[in-house]
Amino acid sequence: MNNNIIDRVRLVKPRVHCITNYVTANDCANILLACGASPIMADCPEESAEITSLCSALVVNLGTPDPQRLEAMLISGKKANELDIPVIFDPVGAGASHFRTDFALKFLREVRLSIIRGNLSEIRSLAGTSSNRHGVDTTDIISDTSIQSAAKLAGELSLKTGAVIAITGETDIVVDSSSAYCIHNGNPIMSSITGCGCMLSALMGAFSAVSDAMLKAAIEAVTAMDVCGQVAAEHLLPHEGNASCRNRLIDAVYRLNAEALTSSADIKKM
Amino acid sequence: MNNNIIDRVRLVKPRVHCITNYVTANDCANILLACGASPIMADCPEESAEITSLCSALVVNLGTPDPQRLEAMLISGKKANELDIPVIFDPVGAGASHFRTDFALKFLREVRLSIIRGNLSEIRSLAGTSSNRHGVDTTDIISDTSIQSAAKLAGELSLKTGAVIAITGETDIVVDSSSAYCIHNGNPIMSSITGCGCMLSALMGAFSAVSDAMLKAAIEAVTAMDVCGQVAAEHLLPHEGNASCRNRLIDAVYRLNAEALTSSADIKKM
Amino acid sequence: MNNNIIDRVRLVKPRVHCITNYVTANDCANILLACGASPIMADCPEESAEITSLCSALVVNLGTPDPQRLEAMLISGKKANELDIPVIFDPVGAGASHFRTDFALKFLREVRLSIIRGNLSEIRSLAGTSSNRHGVDTTDIISDTSIQSAAKLAGELSLKTGAVIAITGETDIVVDSSSAYCIHNGNPIMSSITGCGCMLSALMGAFSAVSDAMLKAAIEAVTAMDVCGQVAAEHLLPHEGNASCRNRLIDAVYRLNAEALTSSADIKKM
Repeated sequence: MNNNIIDRVRLVKPRVHCITNYVTANDCANILLACGASPIMADCPEESAEITSLCSALVVNLGTPDPQRLEAMLISGKKANELDIPVIFDPVGAGASHFRTDFALKFLREVRLSIIRGNLSEIRSLAGTSSNRHGVDTTDIISDTSIQSAAKLAGELSLKTGAVIAITGETDIVVDSSSAYCIHNGNPIMSSITGCGCMLSALMGAFSAVSDAMLKAAIEAVTAMDVCGQVAAEHLLPHEGNASCRNRLIDAVYRLNAEALTSSADIKKM
Repeated sequence: MNNNIIDRVRLVKPRVHCITNYVTANDCANILLACGASPIMADCPEESAEITSLCSALVVNLGTPDPQRLEAMLISGKKANELDIPVIFDPVGAGASHFRTDFALKFLREVRLSIIRGNLSEIRSLAGTSSNRHGVDTTDIISDTSIQSAAKLAGELSLKTGAVIAITGETDIVVDSSSAYCIHNGNPIMSSITGCGCMLSALMGAFSAVSDAMLKAAIEAVTAMDVCGQVAAEHLLPHEGNASCRNRLIDAVYRLNAEALTSSADIKKM
Repeated sequence: MNNNIIDRVRLVKPRVHCITNYVTANDCANILLACGASPIMADCPEESAEITSLCSALVVNLGTPDPQRLEAMLISGKKANELDIPVIFDPVGAGASHFRTDFALKFLREVRLSIIRGNLSEIRSLAGTSSNRHGVDTTDIISDTSIQSAAKLAGELSLKTGAVIAITGETDIVVDSSSAYCIHNGNPIMSSITGCGCMLSALMGAFSAVSDAMLKAAIEAVTAMDVCGQVAAEHLLPHEGNASCRNRLIDAVYRLNAEALTSSADIKKM
């Protein structure tokens, strides 16, 4: 069996059900196609469970929430648990409104999650350690000094939920209840591209769909995204900026192979 | 009068009402502008009929359905019939959920359609010949051996509905109740771009708005899309992939003229 | 204090709450990031006020309206007034349906606005001087002969609402109750890019968030958008069109600095 997850995604072409926000849905669909997966976007309670049952992974993204979409998330989350397919949760903006935070906590209680990916303040609000509210695009970045405490927080949330926790920002960490990894790839321009987090969560859906090891799937997805961000930034012309970089990032995923990924990866066990 | 539909679109600048999914709405708007048409996206029952009455064609796309959007589709479909303007139907994901399939069949019964465009399994589910369910991005591609049976199926659906039927995939066929055409243009990378089908259906809206011959409008729209896909693929740099190709495809429509279209077209009567 | 608004946006990184249509939401988010601001898209009444209270400006865009989104607009508009943060209103399609026109007029009555930006027919429908209905992408362009009457109309609407009025099209004018400016920058291809108006309104949100002078903020945002449209058009390759131009326009905002803006600006007091 092939150990390289990206190669397996291209071979298996897993269907990934995304219940996601309308701001970055197009980018999520294109990055899933770029890595070889097949996206299905469907967010309506009337069909949500049926769509999930056609798929190999479910990605739930809390951006632009409304009551119907949230209902579909719960229905599909439970269906995914029933079918034993991975559920990726991206709690966009958790902590920014009670509506989002309350739902995120409810989702954690009612659905068994495989991977949770967010920025530091989103993960903090899930862990219940956030005293003040933060925006969707927080500057609450993991610094070198705070990285150990972020890993501790993630480890505790992993222990509580059973999910792998990925906290992404300037530095990315991926943690389960017993180990923690730090990925030092990526490029600062990624913070100026809307949906980098959403796209990464979508990629995690594809990677987890073809892997039994959620920690490995999450680490490889983070690394793939970061390495592709580097490739995209390298190809930028002097007059190009975040919009072209978004396209080049998805392009880089389309061109990515396991060898390039392995040779560029800068992953350290913490 | 100019026989080249693309030239007429650029001259007439028809308004096209799109009730479409949020995943590819931006691409549909940009491809309509690229061909010279003027897009109006509006999917709310409260204004849907009024918007349709300002337009020269209606494009109904079943991606990301919800009850309000479906209600708007029926209202606008009936208004378009009343005004005798073309209705293009793109049954995205028909067959993937009962919610979509049931609505698609209801829409067929209650609205008189000009063109129906889908992939093979979507068209199969409308024809009632699909025994198993398929996803939104099906790999159920028309092969050389199945092309005759696909044309037969499309011919029957055309006879039943009065609409021109376009089945697109690796090979594209456009069929009415008495004739069938096969278009051999296009490029494989198009299957990795989200919304190629949606964009084609939008283009059909613009083309049908300025033509009395729906078969010709559908064939020219398919050919235009495929030829532009080829142009886009030719201009791709070695490090570019599906995201850049999406942009180059819309760019190619912006630059397309009737001569280039005619000289590249590979259309065969079946 | 720095007088160049774009520099201040990059320094302050204001959070901008956008209640906007799903067609161009991604472009609005990316252009806000490009100028240095931080976008939050949220359109659900359950969280709308709470999100507004985290932000330094509110941008309300009437594209793809539905009853819930409209309710969120009123709630957030009132909250923004309470907090005394700028409200930018983009009445997309006002005049195209009673649903939109009625809401736009209600919004004008119930919310105190800082800047209103639209094309000529949208602004006419707010001013109550439009006798016939127009589409979303109107060709009702400000010509040299009509520019004086457009400025008069805008001045009257400014007097009535207290807002700065920006009418954009081939020529752009920005008007308050006592003065009027005309901006002669821009490029014709911008009319073939969906969301140029929406993106400009989003930019106005960022600019108004860091300025006390709404007239200046509006003029600088219009000029920035137009100058970036020129830069984008200059960098287009012969086979590129509206889709690449959209990316290059956002890229140009990402690269924009106050000096380039000042040296290219062609602003005249009327």
